[in-house]
Amino acid sequence: MVREIIIIGAGAAGITAASSARRTDPDAKITVFTEDEYVAYSPCVIPWAVEGKVPWESVVMHPPEYYTKKKNINILTKTKVDSIDDSAKTVTAAGITYKYDSIVIAAGAKVFIPPVKGTDLEGVFSVKTLQDGKSIQSYLKNVKSVAVCGAGVIGLEMAFAFRKMGKEVIVVEMFDQVMPRIADKDIADLIQVYLEEKGIKFILKSPVQAINGTGKVSGVTAGNKEYPCEAAVFATGIKANIDLPKHIGLDIGRLGGVVVSPTLQPYKRGLPVPNMYLAGDMIQCQSAVIAGPALSQLGSSAVRQGNVAGMNAAGKKDLYGSVASPWVSVIGEKEIGGTGLSLGLASWYGIDAVAGIADGLSRARYYPDTKGMIVKLLAEPTTHRIIGAQMVAGEGVTGRIDWLTSAIMSGITAEDFLVRSENAYCPPTSMVKDVVIAAAEDLCEKLKAP
Amino acid sequence: MVREIIIIGAGAAGITAASSARRTDPDAKITVFTEDEYVAYSPCVIPWAVEGKVPWESVVMHPPEYYTKKKNINILTKTKVDSIDDSAKTVTAAGITYKYDSIVIAAGAKVFIPPVKGTDLEGVFSVKTLQDGKSIQSYLKNVKSVAVCGAGVIGLEMAFAFRKMGKEVIVVEMFDQVMPRIADKDIADLIQVYLEEKGIKFILKSPVQAINGTGKVSGVTAGNKEYPCEAAVFATGIKANIDLPKHIGLDIGRLGGVVVSPTLQPYKRGLPVPNMYLAGDMIQCQSAVIAGPALSQLGSSAVRQGNVAGMNAAGKKDLYGSVASPWVSVIGEKEIGGTGLSLGLASWYGIDAVAGIADGLSRARYYPDTKGMIVKLLAEPTTHRIIGAQMVAGEGVTGRIDWLTSAIMSGITAEDFLVRSENAYCPPTSMVKDVVIAAAEDLCEKLKAP
Repeated sequence: MVREIIIIGAGAAGITAASSARRTDPDAKITVFTEDEYVAYSPCVIPWAVEGKVPWESVVMHPPEYYTKKKNINILTKTKVDSIDDSAKTVTAAGITYKYDSIVIAAGAKVFIPPVKGTDLEGVFSVKTLQDGKSIQSYLKNVKSVAVCGAGVIGLEMAFAFRKMGKEVIVVEMFDQVMPRIADKDIADLIQVYLEEKGIKFILKSPVQAINGTGKVSGVTAGNKEYPCEAAVFATGIKANIDLPKHIGLDIGRLGGVVVSPTLQPYKRGLPVPNMYLAGDMIQCQSAVIAGPALSQLGSSAVRQGNVAGMNAAGKKDLYGSVASPWVSVIGEKEIGGTGLSLGLASWYGIDAVAGIADGLSRARYYPDTKGMIVKLLAEPTTHRIIGAQMVAGEGVTGRIDWLTSAIMSGITAEDFLVRSENAYCPPTSMVKDVVIAAAEDLCEKLKAP
Repeated sequence: MVREIIIIGAGAAGITAASSARRTDPDAKITVFTEDEYVAYSPCVIPWAVEGKVPWESVVMHPPEYYTKKKNINILTKTKVDSIDDSAKTVTAAGITYKYDSIVIAAGAKVFIPPVKGTDLEGVFSVKTLQDGKSIQSYLKNVKSVAVCGAGVIGLEMAFAFRKMGKEVIVVEMFDQVMPRIADKDIADLIQVYLEEKGIKFILKSPVQAINGTGKVSGVTAGNKEYPCEAAVFATGIKANIDLPKHIGLDIGRLGGVVVSPTLQPYKRGLPVPNMYLAGDMIQCQSAVIAGPALSQLGSSAVRQGNVAGMNAAGKKDLYGSVASPWVSVIGEKEIGGTGLSLGLASWYGIDAVAGIADGLSRARYYPDTKGMIVKLLAEPTTHRIIGAQMVAGEGVTGRIDWLTSAIMSGITAEDFLVRSENAYCPPTSMVKDVVIAAAEDLCEKLKAP
């Protein structure tokens, strides 16, 4: 009997699941449903594509036909799955019912737009799909000023792109800092100052209250003040798309994602659902830092989860572990990244974290084009475990964040990290004592303090 | 009573020891002896300074007076210590005897030049001190061709610099690959091919047999063949400078460095010598990978050791751990690095290592200026521990090597590394699945194979 596998969603998680299922079972019948017209692209690239640095054509790796021809995976684009019957093991889409032996749901997330008036005006956009990006790029050709609502990673990357396009840009944010939640204020402020130097204006502590205009956008109201602008781009976050999970009664976690087992199976009233696997932005993960839930709505997480879900759907068994959720953002000449908990997240989990910090350079002091680097590490005061890291630098953030991610996921103390780390030294790529080591030394000193 | 601390050597280890001692004991009398005229510079920069990319003036961080004025550290330059009496606790230099309460010996390494004829000719150089670098740069103004003897990191970095200066360059190496010992042939070959494309010629499996010329260099003989050239630069390695240790009867290890305790104290016939600490190129370390000795003659190691030795000499207690000895070299547009054991070193220790390998890109496929990256990981077949890593890429090697160094020093298995690692993803700085992760996946597959 040929195994029939249905996959809902063709983003990073869905397409990875399909490929992983194909590798695991060369004979399975694999069908992928997606509402989008493109598959398997990286929405992370939208800011650079809007700016014109990356051509739209290069963003989509393959057309759907590629998967059909090369991997024998059937993809139904622009096709919405309306319902799942997990007892009968069928899905219904566009009036047709399809049978499955196992199913992977990777329906992603929905853009969250705050319920304010005017979001239906011409000139209001969100940032989710390639089409969103293309629409923004096209609309902005005829406008001079744009408001970005939300100062998270996507909001700031978009703001920088708009500025590069020569627009007047204001960023409206309800918190008192950019990149709230994932970055501490002292680290986030470095990026805000950099963007202010580039001419971007920030309106903080001011939730957007309305988009104003007649027919099309003429301004935004935030903090009871109106700011004129000709377009408004919402980057106010995403929420797990749990339409189908709610419909079939899957357990939803307190962070809003679907609760899953290490095999990525969902639950119904605490009992695992057979033959069903979830992956991507819609699931709630386990934190690698603390016994508790975490959201890890990242492309890199989606790929790892898709891999596990696809393999399990195809009859093998693989487990998905806990997450530290490392992230990096590149904004102009600055790189910012983090992993594990920020001070704010630590506090949410009840940890009064201790911080160590160091600044230095990305290369030897005397080497051309050496760039500033600041590294902040957080530890749990009782155990001395490293629980978070953040850094801003002109280059070299990604490898260092990955380094600290492994340290955090191994549960290592700040003191042991120093004993079990040495840095490679070469004048064009590091200082003789890397800034990460200097930050760990500072952290150990701070942990000693009474 | 004021503690009197004597430090022999003012390289990375010696100057770090002096600063560390000063921080530990603000009142100590600290005297540093060095035969060099400069202190505390990074000899690693010589290739870039010779090429003209880094001005000589910027390489020396501070003149000796700086340490006297700012840190109350007395530095005697161009002063050779002739003897140490560790019973009387005195050193004699230039006919004067100095008393100490504790002493740090950081006398570094000596250049090894093979005993062949002609090494005293005009136009023969080694690569150790700033003065060596300046002499080479000056001499090369009037020559068209140069032979580099030794294809290690320094040899290749110098060869590239000479090529950038427009010289005809040949590299002579006794082994059948460049970067023998530290890099595997398949990885090293990538650099050799790159340098050959730049016009550098390699004569492998050919130990240098003679430098020829009348008065000055006119050629080198290697593999029984003569190659004409007007200068010869030896980069045939260094050997621990154990003149003083031998003189006072310290135990020497089988790799040629002085045996030290975790407090960095040397031994005499197995008994630790009180009040004496060693740091830098002259000591033999413990490998972090296997219970055995290792040399770690790196600037980064010297700084770590100097820190521990200086603190201990000043009355506190600190321990120096074992080493993975990560290294990175930048050669033109290529970065190459490694950590832990190479296949050759593993075999020397009796381990028949299993290798995993992956190639990919430093950025997302579609992002401008993305560069190739190849990562090779080695594991011990019995325990599955990761014991070594090497990579070549257009960028981003250092952080990834540091990442793998911590993994190796934590004794993690390949399988656990995958569970305890996630990579940060941003199109300008990584693929959605980093090449390091792909290499670890391949390693796990290889370890499964019967």
